[in-house]
Amino acid sequence: MNEHLYAVILAGGGGTRLWPLSRQKHPKHLLQLIGKETILQSTYKRVRKSFPPEKIFIITHKNHLEEAKRQLPEMQKKNWLVEPQAKNTAMAMTVAATYIAKLDPEAVVINLPADHIIKDITKYSKAAFNALQVAANTKTIVAIGIKPTFAHTGLGYMRIGQQLDDTPAFIGRGFKEKPDLATAQAFLISGEYLWNGGIYSWAVKTLFEELSLHAPELKKASDQLLKVIGKSTEKKVMEKLYEKVENIAIDVAVSEKAKNLAIVPGDFDWSDVGDWRVVYDISAKDEQENVVMGNKDQAVLHETKDTFISAQDKLVVAIGLENLVIIDTEDALLICHKDKTQDVKKAVEKLKALKKDKYL
Amino acid sequence: MNEHLYAVILAGGGGTRLWPLSRQKHPKHLLQLIGKETILQSTYKRVRKSFPPEKIFIITHKNHLEEAKRQLPEMQKKNWLVEPQAKNTAMAMTVAATYIAKLDPEAVVINLPADHIIKDITKYSKAAFNALQVAANTKTIVAIGIKPTFAHTGLGYMRIGQQLDDTPAFIGRGFKEKPDLATAQAFLISGEYLWNGGIYSWAVKTLFEELSLHAPELKKASDQLLKVIGKSTEKKVMEKLYEKVENIAIDVAVSEKAKNLAIVPGDFDWSDVGDWRVVYDISAKDEQENVVMGNKDQAVLHETKDTFISAQDKLVVAIGLENLVIIDTEDALLICHKDKTQDVKKAVEKLKALKKDKYL
Repeated sequence: MNEHLYAVILAGGGGTRLWPLSRQKHPKHLLQLIGKETILQSTYKRVRKSFPPEKIFIITHKNHLEEAKRQLPEMQKKNWLVEPQAKNTAMAMTVAATYIAKLDPEAVVINLPADHIIKDITKYSKAAFNALQVAANTKTIVAIGIKPTFAHTGLGYMRIGQQLDDTPAFIGRGFKEKPDLATAQAFLISGEYLWNGGIYSWAVKTLFEELSLHAPELKKASDQLLKVIGKSTEKKVMEKLYEKVENIAIDVAVSEKAKNLAIVPGDFDWSDVGDWRVVYDISAKDEQENVVMGNKDQAVLHETKDTFISAQDKLVVAIGLENLVIIDTEDALLICHKDKTQDVKKAVEKLKALKKDKYL
Repeated sequence: MNEHLYAVILAGGGGTRLWPLSRQKHPKHLLQLIGKETILQSTYKRVRKSFPPEKIFIITHKNHLEEAKRQLPEMQKKNWLVEPQAKNTAMAMTVAATYIAKLDPEAVVINLPADHIIKDITKYSKAAFNALQVAANTKTIVAIGIKPTFAHTGLGYMRIGQQLDDTPAFIGRGFKEKPDLATAQAFLISGEYLWNGGIYSWAVKTLFEELSLHAPELKKASDQLLKVIGKSTEKKVMEKLYEKVENIAIDVAVSEKAKNLAIVPGDFDWSDVGDWRVVYDISAKDEQENVVMGNKDQAVLHETKDTFISAQDKLVVAIGLENLVIIDTEDALLICHKDKTQDVKKAVEKLKALKKDKYL
């Protein structure tokens, strides 16, 4: 394996649509939603199959660091990168690239969101390897485009053009954020549109060039950070940089504007665990198509079907229910129709407006 | 007022269909379901309008005595009658009649279940007064028959015959327990059938005569009890009597077999608060036909209608719901379709089978 290859796990997300299990202090990737591992643990394990520990970095919010470290004791201490504020993916990826560039200016990085569930690891690893190769050999921003399996209206799409030379990538022909259903269906049929899972690969040099062109403030932040890494002022400078940097996604800051965008298709079973409906869909079901999570002994179901229950210590008795999501936690309870799980986000905003901050 | 008139409040019920608010240790009548008073408090207040304190007796299970006393500090101490076991209405009414007969052999008693909600107190008091008058003046078992307002299939019905002499009562022509819907509808149209709310009046002498004829074991128990009231052996004898007495309703033990049954019609707004559906139906609703009970600040509703929520300390967020009953308590949570609230009883039986006794 090329010694300049690195993986960055982006563990910065919040995931208000998985409230009340997911909270500001305990976001989605730190939850054990599927199987026995948290999403962060599964992500690390997946990455670890292709990378040695010293090549894996995790960037996370300072408030989540302790719990993330507890979940991943095998992570190298110096490879934890800490954000003083959540400022979206453009800053997180820039900061990670800067830290890695300090160690290895020839580094080629793949950025992997920590909140994805991927079942087919072989196909996934192949796509990631292809993306890294393209990023290493061409001066492009490389995105992995996930082959859509249905007309998802909650995701961004990327359009592919012709093949990029003799690489496994295609030339990117633009982005389309959250289409309506008819558009999403047309995308699906066309075969030209792939889901944007936010997985990017680049040589750090290429990223810095693109930042200079399209996001000079981020380039400036990177330059300032590079000077203080390992010094006593590092933490203070980080805080100042995060204080003033724009909250912006990498897609908007760089990818959509990049001179050279390459898309590597990935044909793996992927989910961003966006909301409770998705968690239900990818979970194993009983004969009545129910899913019970958490403390299973504490859920008693009677004439109930197609329902998702997450129980903790409290006894939960369900009678005559259909298509509901019930999430019981120590201090908050959600009961939501399965077709309305996107609205959990709105409800969380309502809680904010009602000044019920302790539940956020 | 006739000095021989007495009221007995029967506070012995359990009410598993109002689980999880209602528990073995905290039954229905001790709950604050409607307004600011518990059902027992409303019942006492209603009775107190027609009876002086010394004429009001309450019979209750020993496990509920302390809480009942706490709720009714104004009750005369000697008028609390305590059951060592729950053995249904035949025994409770017999015991109450026996204690009162000891004080006043000419007593005429009205027996009032503690778990009824009655809004129209004037009409109700009139019916109760009529029943007592008929019981005082004729040697009959007198039942109050409540004018049905819909084809209720969960109640017992009583058929009325011709008027009893020049009294406000009709001769009873039989009982019909929980009819099917078609039968209940026919009953409603006929005008000959009234709901059996379990409100009975009798001269204690008349009751004892009927017991001798139809329930000699109960008469024997009454005789044995009469001998020991006020003596040191009273408690021990009560325990023995309750140990061996049959668990049977007064309707089966006496009323259905009585030589002379009189029915006094009552045209008041009545509910037995049988299940959560009933509690929803009689509660004040908001614009979306929702009812929120308990800690109202802790319920946040979004696109939710026709739903009943009882919240306590925990935050309850409802999204996209319709026709549900959600009862959150400290250790147990019920989520039930509004058309399935009768099945709460089955769920409680299931809990018993699962040995989850601490939730009963």
